[in-house]
Amino acid sequence: MDDLRIDGQRLRERFDAFNEIGATEAGGVDRPALSDANREARDRLLDWFEEAGLSVTVDEMGNIFGRRDGNRECLPPVLFGSHVDSQYNGGRFDGVVGVLGALEVVESLNDAGRRTDRPLEIVSWTNEEGVRFQPDLLGSGVFAGKFDTEFAHSREDQAGKTVEEELERIGYKGDRPCEPRDIHRYFELHVEQGPYLDDRDLSVAAVEGVFGFSWLEVTFEGKADHAGPTPMDSRQDALVGASDVVAAVRRLTATGGDDLVGTVGSVDVWPDSINVIPEVVEFTVDLRSADDAVVDAAVERVRDEIEWAATREGLDYDCEELMRVDAATFDDDCVGTVLAAMREAGYEETQLTSGAGHDASYLNDVCPTAMIFVPSVDGVSHRESEFTEWEDVVAGVDVLGRAVVKSATV
Amino acid sequence: MDDLRIDGQRLRERFDAFNEIGATEAGGVDRPALSDANREARDRLLDWFEEAGLSVTVDEMGNIFGRRDGNRECLPPVLFGSHVDSQYNGGRFDGVVGVLGALEVVESLNDAGRRTDRPLEIVSWTNEEGVRFQPDLLGSGVFAGKFDTEFAHSREDQAGKTVEEELERIGYKGDRPCEPRDIHRYFELHVEQGPYLDDRDLSVAAVEGVFGFSWLEVTFEGKADHAGPTPMDSRQDALVGASDVVAAVRRLTATGGDDLVGTVGSVDVWPDSINVIPEVVEFTVDLRSADDAVVDAAVERVRDEIEWAATREGLDYDCEELMRVDAATFDDDCVGTVLAAMREAGYEETQLTSGAGHDASYLNDVCPTAMIFVPSVDGVSHRESEFTEWEDVVAGVDVLGRAVVKSATV
Repeated sequence: MDDLRIDGQRLRERFDAFNEIGATEAGGVDRPALSDANREARDRLLDWFEEAGLSVTVDEMGNIFGRRDGNRECLPPVLFGSHVDSQYNGGRFDGVVGVLGALEVVESLNDAGRRTDRPLEIVSWTNEEGVRFQPDLLGSGVFAGKFDTEFAHSREDQAGKTVEEELERIGYKGDRPCEPRDIHRYFELHVEQGPYLDDRDLSVAAVEGVFGFSWLEVTFEGKADHAGPTPMDSRQDALVGASDVVAAVRRLTATGGDDLVGTVGSVDVWPDSINVIPEVVEFTVDLRSADDAVVDAAVERVRDEIEWAATREGLDYDCEELMRVDAATFDDDCVGTVLAAMREAGYEETQLTSGAGHDASYLNDVCPTAMIFVPSVDGVSHRESEFTEWEDVVAGVDVLGRAVVKSATV
Repeated sequence: MDDLRIDGQRLRERFDAFNEIGATEAGGVDRPALSDANREARDRLLDWFEEAGLSVTVDEMGNIFGRRDGNRECLPPVLFGSHVDSQYNGGRFDGVVGVLGALEVVESLNDAGRRTDRPLEIVSWTNEEGVRFQPDLLGSGVFAGKFDTEFAHSREDQAGKTVEEELERIGYKGDRPCEPRDIHRYFELHVEQGPYLDDRDLSVAAVEGVFGFSWLEVTFEGKADHAGPTPMDSRQDALVGASDVVAAVRRLTATGGDDLVGTVGSVDVWPDSINVIPEVVEFTVDLRSADDAVVDAAVERVRDEIEWAATREGLDYDCEELMRVDAATFDDDCVGTVLAAMREAGYEETQLTSGAGHDASYLNDVCPTAMIFVPSVDGVSHRESEFTEWEDVVAGVDVLGRAVVKSATV
């Protein structure tokens, strides 16, 4: 690997130029999937991919592939990349580090005049974030056969525009079918989006897998009486019920399994008036663990708590599971390759499990997969203040390059 | 009183005709203060007041007075009435029963050819509900000297229109100054808006006073981290803090004083996303009791609970008291007159304290005051399904008429 030198300065210049697209005043980017800013970002990628000598193809989900031939074109490629769609007013590192990092790996190989045995492919997946179109991980989900293309194309944003219409509008509905194909290995470099590495002053980690999760949507319905003349003993207060569940979710994380995390993130109250008892409260519950059995048990316990809270307060209730994704355990050999790359580059061999979902979770069902994390300062992500020290970004790209080249060597 | 006969049928026809103005499909009315529908309702009142021989004046707050001369014009009048503005999609009875009931009292006196010693005045107050312009009880508040006219005129709705502009637009900014003047007594007939009378199958009650209340607005601020990779021990979840306070408010009502009621009615969560830990939660607390000392103690305890919840979760917080209204204790003689009227009319002598605020609370500071309640079926109010049995409405008007005539007799 002495012949592969990551050029941190070149990567930095590309990173800064790229993040002028859809830049926000507070230092973030606003490039949700299939927006005009996302189109501009895609156009820029295509230019750079072609300048780097990659053959570009776009599939019918708008996933962008840039291929570099290998010495043995008959062998399945090593695929690596991430995504360039952002949250609304999101951060500059999330996704971008993995795609531009992959491009830098190719440029370093070009600099060294080195051809790998296996072909290499860089990928930028469509609609990873899921903020404009649900579900998230849509492009990689279709690629991995989790959703069919028709379903994915029909997803609508809040204005009623579909994925297919918007792909056509921005000129990124490609001809290539989006479907599973033979991939040797998939690697994804990403920011951690949690505080583990930053807390421990570590630059890079191998990711062993991704937490499974369940998303619940809960509705409590009581009675919207006047807050003054309604005695306490005749109230049916939907918010009191919901608050019981918020407290129960927190309690459960103490006892429901070592790595269980639980969050109530969204709450909607009706009629939402200072002097009216809440009649309807809708809220969500997010439960995650690396162990699917822990998620199962947590979902059952939260369902119990919902029933108990409703009974206590005399409420009607409904609980729907919006989404369930099983935990992903990445391929031992791929993780081992990342660890070997870290060792070789002189980094401490750190492993962790991702609490956040990634395109790699779906790829893991199609081919041997692993991820590389670099730190998120203070664990912050999905915000304009998201930040990673540049030397850590470069460390991640270095490890990615080593892992890719090792995997592409027969 | 044998010569005063309330004509339930005439009142019913007027009530139905009046509630065609701003009628909603679900059987309620939508006539918020100073809206077009509110203008139409005011125009109708003026026609009917004039048909009943009343001299109409409108003050600079748009409060409408209809005066019937007495045998002794030098004496201060007996004032009675309520309001005809409604909640957005509110009920047909709230306020209307008190104004049209007052008109029916005058009509009955007209039928009987009877002139009272004291002059009588019917009043319809502006912006009782406070849904379009805050604060509520605005017209009676200025009349009682609680707010000055300039302040009241400058109140804006969500579209930025002021009370003064809207009074001018609908033609109800009168010339008469809105200020305290010499009133012998004030009576107000209203629906209870709670379940007390309905639960006990009672038709009518004398109201001894109105609960005092405090409105708090609380803000918790934590950190909006990703719900997956953020370990439980590094979270600052503003919703967990808010839920602790919701539970604390409920607990406090069990121990904080016999008649203490407490409600968290409005909650706003940011960023309100299924997989993001809530960073900011704003919510309101409504605390009420007939005893101001109980409200004081409850506010102090809720402030403690806010501080404790913030400390527990590592949150910043702010707590502002938006409004504080002292409990009103109505005049013993006025309440006694209502009780005597009830006895005379054959109703059980029931007394209760109102949990909801009323224009009568402010009038109580200007002149001897009492109220009369008729039942709200199931305690429902501020909703299209608000309902009172017609025989109970008539009972309330009968008691109002008797109390007014007694009070107007020298």
